[in-house]
Amino acid sequence: MNKKQKIVVIGGVACGPKAAARIKRLHPETDVTIIEKGELLSYAGCGLPFYISGEVKNHNELMATPTGVVRDTHFFKMVKDINVKNHTLVKSVDREKKMIHAICLDTGDAIDLPYDKLVLAVGSKYQVPPIEGTDLKGVHFLQTVEDARKIRNENGPLTGKKAVIIGAGLIGIEVTEAFKKQGMTITIIERLDRVMGELLDPELAYHAHNELAVNDISLRLNESVIKINGNDRGNVKSVTTAKGDIAADIVLIAVGVKPNIRLAKEMGLDIGETGAIKTDTHMCTSDPSIYAGGDCVENINRVTGKPIYAPMGSTANKHGRVIADNICGIKSEFKGVLGTTIVKLFNLNIARTGLTETAAKHAGYDYITVLNPAPDKAHFLSDAKMIIIKFVVDKQSRKLLGAQITGPGDVAKRMEVAVANITSGAMVTDISQYDLAYAPPFSPAMDNIITTANIAENKLNGLGMTYTPIEVKEKMTNGDDFIFLDVRSPEEFEHMRIEDTRLKLIPLGKLRRSLNDLPKNKEIIPFCKISLRGYEAARILEGEGYKNVKFMDGGIVCWPFEKIVNR
Amino acid sequence: MNKKQKIVVIGGVACGPKAAARIKRLHPETDVTIIEKGELLSYAGCGLPFYISGEVKNHNELMATPTGVVRDTHFFKMVKDINVKNHTLVKSVDREKKMIHAICLDTGDAIDLPYDKLVLAVGSKYQVPPIEGTDLKGVHFLQTVEDARKIRNENGPLTGKKAVIIGAGLIGIEVTEAFKKQGMTITIIERLDRVMGELLDPELAYHAHNELAVNDISLRLNESVIKINGNDRGNVKSVTTAKGDIAADIVLIAVGVKPNIRLAKEMGLDIGETGAIKTDTHMCTSDPSIYAGGDCVENINRVTGKPIYAPMGSTANKHGRVIADNICGIKSEFKGVLGTTIVKLFNLNIARTGLTETAAKHAGYDYITVLNPAPDKAHFLSDAKMIIIKFVVDKQSRKLLGAQITGPGDVAKRMEVAVANITSGAMVTDISQYDLAYAPPFSPAMDNIITTANIAENKLNGLGMTYTPIEVKEKMTNGDDFIFLDVRSPEEFEHMRIEDTRLKLIPLGKLRRSLNDLPKNKEIIPFCKISLRGYEAARILEGEGYKNVKFMDGGIVCWPFEKIVNR
Repeated sequence: MNKKQKIVVIGGVACGPKAAARIKRLHPETDVTIIEKGELLSYAGCGLPFYISGEVKNHNELMATPTGVVRDTHFFKMVKDINVKNHTLVKSVDREKKMIHAICLDTGDAIDLPYDKLVLAVGSKYQVPPIEGTDLKGVHFLQTVEDARKIRNENGPLTGKKAVIIGAGLIGIEVTEAFKKQGMTITIIERLDRVMGELLDPELAYHAHNELAVNDISLRLNESVIKINGNDRGNVKSVTTAKGDIAADIVLIAVGVKPNIRLAKEMGLDIGETGAIKTDTHMCTSDPSIYAGGDCVENINRVTGKPIYAPMGSTANKHGRVIADNICGIKSEFKGVLGTTIVKLFNLNIARTGLTETAAKHAGYDYITVLNPAPDKAHFLSDAKMIIIKFVVDKQSRKLLGAQITGPGDVAKRMEVAVANITSGAMVTDISQYDLAYAPPFSPAMDNIITTANIAENKLNGLGMTYTPIEVKEKMTNGDDFIFLDVRSPEEFEHMRIEDTRLKLIPLGKLRRSLNDLPKNKEIIPFCKISLRGYEAARILEGEGYKNVKFMDGGIVCWPFEKIVNR
Repeated sequence: MNKKQKIVVIGGVACGPKAAARIKRLHPETDVTIIEKGELLSYAGCGLPFYISGEVKNHNELMATPTGVVRDTHFFKMVKDINVKNHTLVKSVDREKKMIHAICLDTGDAIDLPYDKLVLAVGSKYQVPPIEGTDLKGVHFLQTVEDARKIRNENGPLTGKKAVIIGAGLIGIEVTEAFKKQGMTITIIERLDRVMGELLDPELAYHAHNELAVNDISLRLNESVIKINGNDRGNVKSVTTAKGDIAADIVLIAVGVKPNIRLAKEMGLDIGETGAIKTDTHMCTSDPSIYAGGDCVENINRVTGKPIYAPMGSTANKHGRVIADNICGIKSEFKGVLGTTIVKLFNLNIARTGLTETAAKHAGYDYITVLNPAPDKAHFLSDAKMIIIKFVVDKQSRKLLGAQITGPGDVAKRMEVAVANITSGAMVTDISQYDLAYAPPFSPAMDNIITTANIAENKLNGLGMTYTPIEVKEKMTNGDDFIFLDVRSPEEFEHMRIEDTRLKLIPLGKLRRSLNDLPKNKEIIPFCKISLRGYEAARILEGEGYKNVKFMDGGIVCWPFEKIVNR
């Protein structure tokens, strides 16, 4: 291989600089150029909400190395020996002549740049909804450092301002917390019935809705924005939905992103079914001299084997490494993603990977689900916090299709175990064997994810048959006849309960003596706080010859409908 | 199978009650009895230091379910339909007649109990060193709730008391923090050269030593206790080592535990090479009617395939589940452990799994190591904290032999990923593909464990050759001639540096212009704070034709020897 080849990277964030830097480390004699249309390089796009919130004081911190050196063009040249042409827009690429035609945005000069290998790392672009008023002053999108600086600097002091966030996806949620930290009053408008849309099942999203309410955020679900209204100075003043007008000093539109494929399309490269650039596992496009990575490409979903568009900074960095390897003759592969995401929403952590139950049902899988709420560390420690793990498991292969975890406790740790388990191709029950790191400040003796795997195993073996809270609610709505058996203590019942005529309270410790109150010909659905005792109750009843018993998964903690609460 | 069989479980903590409860859930018609010599059942032994510290107010909390119900004999009978005979000591077992001969410790009555299947969950016992004075008042061991209550109640108010802890293993370390929280002055005496002995390599233990010093704990390494001295009232007053006397109001002896094998030996069951009871993967002993689990058995080390004695509460619970399954006809297996442990020491978290470098070397593996210090989340967030990951990787199989992680940041999360990776049988490089949960409050875009795996891959491919800090120190001691090239900034150098005549400071950004200062015929060892720039420097030099370059792994952060620090 010619180690002196010319490499041109288009795009200066995440994937691009990562690929460029590694190419130089692998083959220092390579001639590497990065072309970037903006000013800024290698900034942490995912850090923008933390700049808006004020947690990050100066936007330069988002572009600095961990030791505080700003990654500007000088840094790239001196440290990495990489040429950077910023403020430079690529107009077209001649694949036959391997020539890039660009223009310097400062001078208007045309620049022609030959390449041996080209890397497209051109990212994505936020979507602009087709409504009036998106160009008013005070209406913002969030993708670049410039966008974030505008939000912080163009609206005067943010404290006390009324903000409307359109879209309750990841960016909408992160900015909600940032706006709240700035002392703003916030309304979120979301056209779906829940936050994070297709990323979460309803009973998990329910906890996010509660957390927003606790923090005085007004969440308007199932509502679409019709137009954005301005005053006569061109400043935004309100947002109109079918339900009326909502006053607004600032509007953030966060309704998703689309891959930048203009250049790829014009060059005739293959575009995938998700609408993003298609590559092979070496991140090579349909042209063997052109690689692509980051937010402009589609990935393979490792659960389904199908293409997925799931742009993430972590994935972009992985792409960059694989691209560099392949350009330098190392045949690395990128094997795909699980669509893992995590977000902090005030005191609630929310993480998910793989398929939701909704997606698994839609795709026709035969699956079981588990809902397991429990403290995240030894329950006798005062800082133990609840987390709820939901597993979706394929019945036939016994593999995890997906996991969702939420709660104020340590959600991230358990999510990583689920991710590692799925990626390894192991069965969900293999998690039961993991020798995870136990000490009381870190986890219960049986870690939450191990008990979740154990419950999954029980269910796969036909033990511990359950209804989900949503199925129980459906049975109620249908008017089904059953005994909804609460086996908690009277004190717990007093504190919080579900009101329903089918409900009967028999504490678990009294169940064996109370069988006369429970007819054998009726269906019985026991539950408790988290349904550990609910499971125990079901096993006791089955042991006593009851044939029609299923406990409610997750207990009252996971009941996403109305509850009577006395604090 | 006879579902009405009689099951007797000897031992009422962790493994025993877990097995008993699951047997009843699987086959409710089974007759299950637990025999326990003490009063207490199902207590959280690992929680004892948190009771000593006062974080757990009442010892009953250690025996309660998460909803606060104490697991006493009444609880076991009413909720689980399990008979409990506590205050009962098993004298002998007649395996031929399947009969247990026990004695009630309250009344002295003999009890004969037949069994179909027997479960030995008799735990371990602390070791008593063969020195004078271990029976003095104020000298304690820590294993049971009673032991912990004695420490808290028999010594008067603990504040201001002088404590000596003998043994710096896990229990010694956990009690150190508990004693400190009670306002005591603490000296730790450890016969080895580091805390946590064989569980950690020296450069990781070094950070624990620092953390102890910062918290005013006197740590005396390479020192053995000769005797413990009392006053004329039989109270402890000091501890004698070869280096003199250390005054003590309280002494805690924590020099390890041994499996309880008296009964198993008398019954003629197979004992393994580690000295603990030997079982097959179904947790069955050499007698097909007798199962054993928890701290009295040995496990298989999943890395080496060899037996290991590694008693842990988490493992005991797993054993209990597997024993119950097999007794009830489900052929579950317990496949072994990795020897994972985690401990919190003031603001430092320390976790480890598998083999240390020391152990890998001893076992004759051909391995590489990686030391990777980095912030545990996006570095622009003010609560980002350092963690150091050490990998030991088998060169041939490219599998992780072990991992050690320490630092004030989130150590546990990365440890679980390492554990899942090893257990799945995957290569260390597979970690690079994990779609871990990224958002700035949770991790860097490339999670620390992914970069560690990437560095391992580089090294396995012959890129990024390094010396460990310990190897560099050895070269210094040997008087080797080399350039020890610090590529940090002058400000960083001013703040903290290694003093050595071989040292030369050339900031990375100036390296390409400073090659005249670096002779090509000398070995060059670059490093920086964490050796990311050190690696970059090595690649630059190699690119410029330098043939004798290896950077120092982990940088100055991982240098476990003297440093000049100006705060």
